[in-house]
Amino acid sequence: MRTVYWENDALYAIEQTLLPHEEKVVRLETSDAACDAIYRLAVRGAPAIGVTGAFAMVLAAREAGTRDVAKVLAHLEKESMKIGNTRPTATNLSWAVGRMMGLARSLGGADFPTLDARLLAEAQAIADGEAENARRICEYGATVIPDSGARILTHCETGPLCTIEHGLSTGVAIWAHMHGKKVHVYSDETRPRLQGAKLNIYELRKYGVPYTLLTDNMAGYAMQRGLVDMVFVSADRVARNGDTAAKIGVYGVCVLAQKHGIPVFLHAPMSTIDFGTATGDDIQIEERDPQEVLCINGCQIAPADTPVLNPAFDVTPHNHFAAIITERGFAYPPFEESLTKMRDRE
Amino acid sequence: MRTVYWENDALYAIEQTLLPHEEKVVRLETSDAACDAIYRLAVRGAPAIGVTGAFAMVLAAREAGTRDVAKVLAHLEKESMKIGNTRPTATNLSWAVGRMMGLARSLGGADFPTLDARLLAEAQAIADGEAENARRICEYGATVIPDSGARILTHCETGPLCTIEHGLSTGVAIWAHMHGKKVHVYSDETRPRLQGAKLNIYELRKYGVPYTLLTDNMAGYAMQRGLVDMVFVSADRVARNGDTAAKIGVYGVCVLAQKHGIPVFLHAPMSTIDFGTATGDDIQIEERDPQEVLCINGCQIAPADTPVLNPAFDVTPHNHFAAIITERGFAYPPFEESLTKMRDRE
Repeated sequence: MRTVYWENDALYAIEQTLLPHEEKVVRLETSDAACDAIYRLAVRGAPAIGVTGAFAMVLAAREAGTRDVAKVLAHLEKESMKIGNTRPTATNLSWAVGRMMGLARSLGGADFPTLDARLLAEAQAIADGEAENARRICEYGATVIPDSGARILTHCETGPLCTIEHGLSTGVAIWAHMHGKKVHVYSDETRPRLQGAKLNIYELRKYGVPYTLLTDNMAGYAMQRGLVDMVFVSADRVARNGDTAAKIGVYGVCVLAQKHGIPVFLHAPMSTIDFGTATGDDIQIEERDPQEVLCINGCQIAPADTPVLNPAFDVTPHNHFAAIITERGFAYPPFEESLTKMRDRE
Repeated sequence: MRTVYWENDALYAIEQTLLPHEEKVVRLETSDAACDAIYRLAVRGAPAIGVTGAFAMVLAAREAGTRDVAKVLAHLEKESMKIGNTRPTATNLSWAVGRMMGLARSLGGADFPTLDARLLAEAQAIADGEAENARRICEYGATVIPDSGARILTHCETGPLCTIEHGLSTGVAIWAHMHGKKVHVYSDETRPRLQGAKLNIYELRKYGVPYTLLTDNMAGYAMQRGLVDMVFVSADRVARNGDTAAKIGVYGVCVLAQKHGIPVFLHAPMSTIDFGTATGDDIQIEERDPQEVLCINGCQIAPADTPVLNPAFDVTPHNHFAAIITERGFAYPPFEESLTKMRDRE
């Protein structure tokens, strides 16, 4: 089952904020509801929010209040800005919304039912594409795990939830496990939203992959003790040179891995690679609500007026990655060259 | 006011687990209650648990159920093992208990009232000594902060609570602030027990020191963004060569600081320096209850049977510290030489 899907002419998603305690699927009735789900992190993970944004464009077209295609397009232009900016860092969202808008513009001469059908088919194609890309990344990614097995450190949730199926880093570990390799995942809990503890563990457990949960500040200890053979991380936006915005804390994990001579493999579909961004310095980092830090599951850990830093991501320089693994295979340093070649191959 | 103290013939301590929501002083009626307070982290911080352990020895002597000094000493020998092992990593506890036991042994010929009075005076001297040591560390420590001020990253609670008065790393920042220097403290929240968010912020707020709270995995981001001028950390046990067991996560912070060329200053009274331990490899690391990771303020973040790593400390190699600051001043690398000289100076 996919974690975001269109069925009986409506958009559905697993409500990730209720996991692992409750597995609930919510119906996202409107494009606003879809944006809200993205903002609240009910749907999260770069490819998954791209897919949700694409379906939100289908809903937005239907909400134009008219079947006059010129007016629908004008409405969509406005809505696409809103949907695309719901979260600023992951490039998949603006990529998917841009692809939908581009198609819509090309259909200025069509009637509404055609526009509607084509938009829906395009969103479905984006969803199918992301699922298939994730499957390929899992297949390629698993090849770095030796037959003797590996102990893998991951950060944040990077399983099926983030790509609607299969997953990225955790998906690779699940894939390897399903194909008979002996893997053990050390999953950082990933404050402030605890996606590692709440979501990644939920997925590892579901697929029967052996795992250990640790707080983010224990990664160095685990490496010192020789518990980690390799680090798997997933990206929210990869710049042309390989600099990567990923969940806050990935940078610290990568610095520790480098210090300990542990290879870091980065998993990202091509839709996450932003060739329009030269380096990590050009990536906008989303700063989120201080309450995410101050309040854990309804419990206030420090006074509500406490000044807080809450960047959702940090940027890891490209020289920390042994390879970037996409649906087209392995890119090795220098990444500007290898990623560009990879893009131009088709 | 001290955070652990003897008054009207009884031992009192601030119940740290209730902070910052409630400032409550608990009376520790028995040596068992004192040990329990140490184990529960109601009293925590290496020097503070040393002081509490010393007073626990006074209580233990009174609990022997006899005024026959030979029997009291036999009882104390047994109790001292128990009290000293309540938490294994911080050396102050075994140091303080050892000092009390040594005194008791030397009083085998005395009567019970003399033994009791001398033990109480010794515990009080240990308390006064730790408070005075912390005051000196604050005074020395503040000299590294330039007149133009500094932005300081700290990890865990290192203010007055941990030394019963004045404090170590956060104490230095408070001292500098009280003496007119412009400081800003970036306080890591310090999972799993959140001593940074709950206790350090409480102290900074109390003394009016400007601060920002961040999750542990944001320290790298803060350094990347140029927000941190220096890192202050405090020790639970320093080996002879300067390798240091400190709150879990200090190692990661120090690796990041080194990567960014940010100096790390380590604050520790001489009672924390364990000359009997050659290197960090010889330090026993306390592994604590998995529930500390799995359950935050009564809220279960992952299933109760989740396999967990929960070391209370990690070990930072000596080459990460610009200086170790004790009540006797600054020790610089090589630390084996400078710390030994410092010890032998008196």
